[in-house]
Amino acid sequence: MNSKTGKGAYTPGRPVYIVGYGSAAGEKESEGPFGAFFDYCAKDDRMNMKSFELAETHFTEKAVAAALKRSGRSLDGIDALLGGDLMNQCTATSYFARSVGRPFIGLFNACATMAEAMALSALLVGGGGFENVLAAASSHFCTAERQFRFPLEYGGQRSPAAQWTVTASGAAVISSEPSESAAEIAGVYFGKVRDLGIKDASNMGAAMAPAFCDTLEGYFEDSKTVPSDYDLIVSGDLGAVGAGIVKEIFDKKGVPLGDVYNDCGLLVFDREKDDVHAGGSGCGCSAAVLCAKILPDMLSESIKRALFIGTGALMSPMLVMQKESIPGIAHLIELRQARL
Amino acid sequence: MNSKTGKGAYTPGRPVYIVGYGSAAGEKESEGPFGAFFDYCAKDDRMNMKSFELAETHFTEKAVAAALKRSGRSLDGIDALLGGDLMNQCTATSYFARSVGRPFIGLFNACATMAEAMALSALLVGGGGFENVLAAASSHFCTAERQFRFPLEYGGQRSPAAQWTVTASGAAVISSEPSESAAEIAGVYFGKVRDLGIKDASNMGAAMAPAFCDTLEGYFEDSKTVPSDYDLIVSGDLGAVGAGIVKEIFDKKGVPLGDVYNDCGLLVFDREKDDVHAGGSGCGCSAAVLCAKILPDMLSESIKRALFIGTGALMSPMLVMQKESIPGIAHLIELRQARL
Repeated sequence: MNSKTGKGAYTPGRPVYIVGYGSAAGEKESEGPFGAFFDYCAKDDRMNMKSFELAETHFTEKAVAAALKRSGRSLDGIDALLGGDLMNQCTATSYFARSVGRPFIGLFNACATMAEAMALSALLVGGGGFENVLAAASSHFCTAERQFRFPLEYGGQRSPAAQWTVTASGAAVISSEPSESAAEIAGVYFGKVRDLGIKDASNMGAAMAPAFCDTLEGYFEDSKTVPSDYDLIVSGDLGAVGAGIVKEIFDKKGVPLGDVYNDCGLLVFDREKDDVHAGGSGCGCSAAVLCAKILPDMLSESIKRALFIGTGALMSPMLVMQKESIPGIAHLIELRQARL
Repeated sequence: MNSKTGKGAYTPGRPVYIVGYGSAAGEKESEGPFGAFFDYCAKDDRMNMKSFELAETHFTEKAVAAALKRSGRSLDGIDALLGGDLMNQCTATSYFARSVGRPFIGLFNACATMAEAMALSALLVGGGGFENVLAAASSHFCTAERQFRFPLEYGGQRSPAAQWTVTASGAAVISSEPSESAAEIAGVYFGKVRDLGIKDASNMGAAMAPAFCDTLEGYFEDSKTVPSDYDLIVSGDLGAVGAGIVKEIFDKKGVPLGDVYNDCGLLVFDREKDDVHAGGSGCGCSAAVLCAKILPDMLSESIKRALFIGTGALMSPMLVMQKESIPGIAHLIELRQARL
């Protein structure tokens, strides 16, 4: 039985390991600072498929294949696939699930979907009766941009606060039994929806920042920890605007996050060179950064304890047109280097 | 710790009760055969909101309020809200979650979302460390039709196989502690995605039928039960076409479902009078039928053991336009009259 610690944090009832991870990324992402870390780098974002939508499905296929290979497990041993994406509705993952032949639990919390999938997986393996679970999330610049903002051909000027939807997928195998384990999921925290009234679909960082602060503060309180207890606290994906806001808020609270804090949207691109304005975003951004860099770094001992906090702007193109504000959410998992 | 029985069925590690349920329905639904059973009947489908989208959010609010009231619990005691809807992406539920102030776990498996939420809730309460969970799902004819098919003003002729998206919401409180309990969730089964190539967005019943058969057959096998062990086996929502297909398939297998089988999409409307062609559909259809009729019937002793199988057409308007086929999924929960 998993246990609740404090108001909102949960500890898995038995050790839960991330035993495999994989990532696949698009052309622009592969030419960025993380190019060397992805398991699969696409030469073009269509991947020889007839649409960008089917290409996104293919990215997930590549990431999952790499995760399974690293875990030494086959699909037969997987109890369920948990995941989702930005495409109306959760399409890339649902279409990928056709070829999986394992139970599929579709999730959606926008860019917090990977964190949501990992947190649920941890509880389902920790006490829920599952032994091996696949968690996956993806996004694609071309499928998301035309769905949430403007037609690709429109070529409008982007606002300085806008984030660039990352074309990538990340996948992880979560298990009760370690096998060359990278990390243990030591705690999870599901966030509440926060909405302080941001209505600009090109400023998602500001829309998500309050939810991030709420979740991180709640976890610090429940786990009785402070920022310096961690080697890395990473949000996914607040971008430059949102990350700036949360740093300022925690500074004002007297709990400065300091150098251990970073953001997946700032890590995955070189903002100047890649011309991505406030940084990367999309379900696939935090999923791919987690699976391409953070988890491998926990194997190589450079990160011993980390917090991964997925942040989602629960944005609807329809409601944005109706001038409604954008709700934000943030889910957290605590990662610890596994000691076997 | 929950336990896995057979290949895909799970039994909660401790008794899990549905301690509250509530439903809210639109004008057409309220004038149908289930009109007397809904907790809230809207006089018009806009509910005085400025858009149909915000009205759908309001339906969920009404259903949740009724479920909480019946459960004797307040939002403060709820560990998480699990749910979703058909609106790009999971918008009605996300916007409702703004006012909830409790952790939100967004789900999407199309019309199987309520079953998915109930099944996950059962495992999270059964061994996952959660004590009280809210599960909710909604749909609205006007938000779904214009998103998935045609503009409302178009007024095109509907195909005979088409289902009518139900304007309704259903919500349930799932708990480790009974209080005037209606039913126990005795088992769950998460389904696999099945796609036999149906490409007609107006024939979702046929697209979902294979997934339903797969899930129900799997549960019969794992639980070593047959149709006559149950007082009710209900799909949500295959409509007349899909229900006809599954009856034929089970007949051919030599396991006729017989009179215990019914479908939420056939129950909620009078097909002749209401002019809904193959019946109802939408996340809110099975959610509202479960919470307005099936659960109360378990209190009044007329149903002692039932299977509720949510079926979802994981349809994307974009992929349908790209001439891709429609994947189907089905999740199952076994309900038993609680003996306290």
